[in-house]
Amino acid sequence: MAPRYLTGDAAGLKSFLDKFDVVFLFDCDGVLWSGDYLFPGTVETLELLRGRGKQVVFVTNNSTKSRVDYQKKLTGLGIPSNPEEIFCSSYSASIYISRILKLPADKRKVFVIGETGIEQELRSENVPFIGGTDPALRRDITPEDYKRIAAGDDPSVIDPEVGVVLVGLDFHINYLKIALAYHYVKRGAIFLATNIDSTLPSSGSLFPGAGSMSAPLIMMLGQDPVALGKPSQAMMDAIEGKFHFDRSRACMVGDRLNTDIRFGIEGKLGGTLAVLTGVSSKEEILTGTVQPAAYLDKLSDLLEAES
Amino acid sequence: MAPRYLTGDAAGLKSFLDKFDVVFLFDCDGVLWSGDYLFPGTVETLELLRGRGKQVVFVTNNSTKSRVDYQKKLTGLGIPSNPEEIFCSSYSASIYISRILKLPADKRKVFVIGETGIEQELRSENVPFIGGTDPALRRDITPEDYKRIAAGDDPSVIDPEVGVVLVGLDFHINYLKIALAYHYVKRGAIFLATNIDSTLPSSGSLFPGAGSMSAPLIMMLGQDPVALGKPSQAMMDAIEGKFHFDRSRACMVGDRLNTDIRFGIEGKLGGTLAVLTGVSSKEEILTGTVQPAAYLDKLSDLLEAES
Repeated sequence: MAPRYLTGDAAGLKSFLDKFDVVFLFDCDGVLWSGDYLFPGTVETLELLRGRGKQVVFVTNNSTKSRVDYQKKLTGLGIPSNPEEIFCSSYSASIYISRILKLPADKRKVFVIGETGIEQELRSENVPFIGGTDPALRRDITPEDYKRIAAGDDPSVIDPEVGVVLVGLDFHINYLKIALAYHYVKRGAIFLATNIDSTLPSSGSLFPGAGSMSAPLIMMLGQDPVALGKPSQAMMDAIEGKFHFDRSRACMVGDRLNTDIRFGIEGKLGGTLAVLTGVSSKEEILTGTVQPAAYLDKLSDLLEAES
Repeated sequence: MAPRYLTGDAAGLKSFLDKFDVVFLFDCDGVLWSGDYLFPGTVETLELLRGRGKQVVFVTNNSTKSRVDYQKKLTGLGIPSNPEEIFCSSYSASIYISRILKLPADKRKVFVIGETGIEQELRSENVPFIGGTDPALRRDITPEDYKRIAAGDDPSVIDPEVGVVLVGLDFHINYLKIALAYHYVKRGAIFLATNIDSTLPSSGSLFPGAGSMSAPLIMMLGQDPVALGKPSQAMMDAIEGKFHFDRSRACMVGDRLNTDIRFGIEGKLGGTLAVLTGVSSKEEILTGTVQPAAYLDKLSDLLEAES
């Protein structure tokens, strides 16, 4: 069935909103705002949904921020929220490691490529980790490093308790970190990624995303990571684990077909709603292999349901 | 035809050596030496070939060294050579840029991800470049960088004369360099790689190779680079351009089936000879899709032809 265009269709909007009366999952950047620019009508639209008793959930693949960081961002933009409503890929990954993976007692440490968001969420789940923002790894590789990493017999270089490598967006990625991550996986660690978005939208353009941090390892290992962000259903399972909702009465709203909309479709949500204020274009929505149930020019067109 | 095992087969070795009476192309690491360890008999074997009037050529995908650097390495290991006999991927790439690519006069600059070897070879071909070992790029990305890179209107940030992005092994790879390389290619620069070996052998183990530096860009761009190292025939063309030899009377010797042996086969050389002192195993040689004409336990088994 072709995606239904709901902008300007007040009756269609009303029935759409009535149908998904439980949960609205929102991608954020490209839907609610772009970078630091809040789209007009975002706050009012969220109020409309909350006023009708719908649970609002913010679902983001951004792994550099923790839920607490993310709430600060929402607050700074004037969007009321609480941390319980926020699911970021660093949180999804931490839950996966602490609750789903059955790690042996002597292999419970995580080697992190990423920023503080991941570290905060791992701490919140009591998962021990090394790497991440450790300044000791923000340096060039030395001839001595090659020998010690290859030998692998010094626990201060290759920690034998590392059972997981978790890769997220790291603005301080370097050769040493990639080399260490590779050696941990070769020695048996599980290869996880917070998400595999190749790019990060910023300043109206694109920059390297978390997927680009995993790319060297994928090439070296010939192995893809288990990715915990959208469209991974590990994230949907985590959301359902908290809210226990009826999927047929939930709707995913997003701007990216291959992450957001696919996330909703594969999660068997009742509805998927695309907006044209982000990455995917109208043409892609109408001709792509992943199609939403409905689409709008912009999120605030939902306000027309009130008219 | 199954690869012929020549170790201990003096008659077979003699006829093999007689057949390829013009040029022997040698991969180096894993064939002549491993790391800093020279295999016994390497010097004598090269002497045997030279004594029989064969041209010896050293062909390496190592892009961190120039030909001059590489000769120093050969000399340090006790292997007589001259720079004319050495083809490294940084040289191959420089020749490709200066002699094959027809760059517009205002797009002749190369943005380099890599070390001094590439810079030296670009200089030897009078190719202007930026990036590389420039200390100004060995730093974290700043919020200001995002804006200026995205805007692209400041020639001190995004140089409008860059027409090529050349990616080799860079021990100082970072987020800023990847972001800049991505933006140059998006603005029309040609995407080249010295080579795409995903790993670099060192200390008896593997570390990130030049291909791992291209991997984030490949993922972000959805585009592969033109790679100039083995098995790219751009490298074979460069070698033939210098020595003007009869390919049917030349032989490629190497330890990696998917680079060295494939390089010789696709270059339609008369012979390919694998040795078991490097990456590929006997099993891979006998069962792989890329098979050499012959193989030896070790290069110095060629000395048995003298016995």
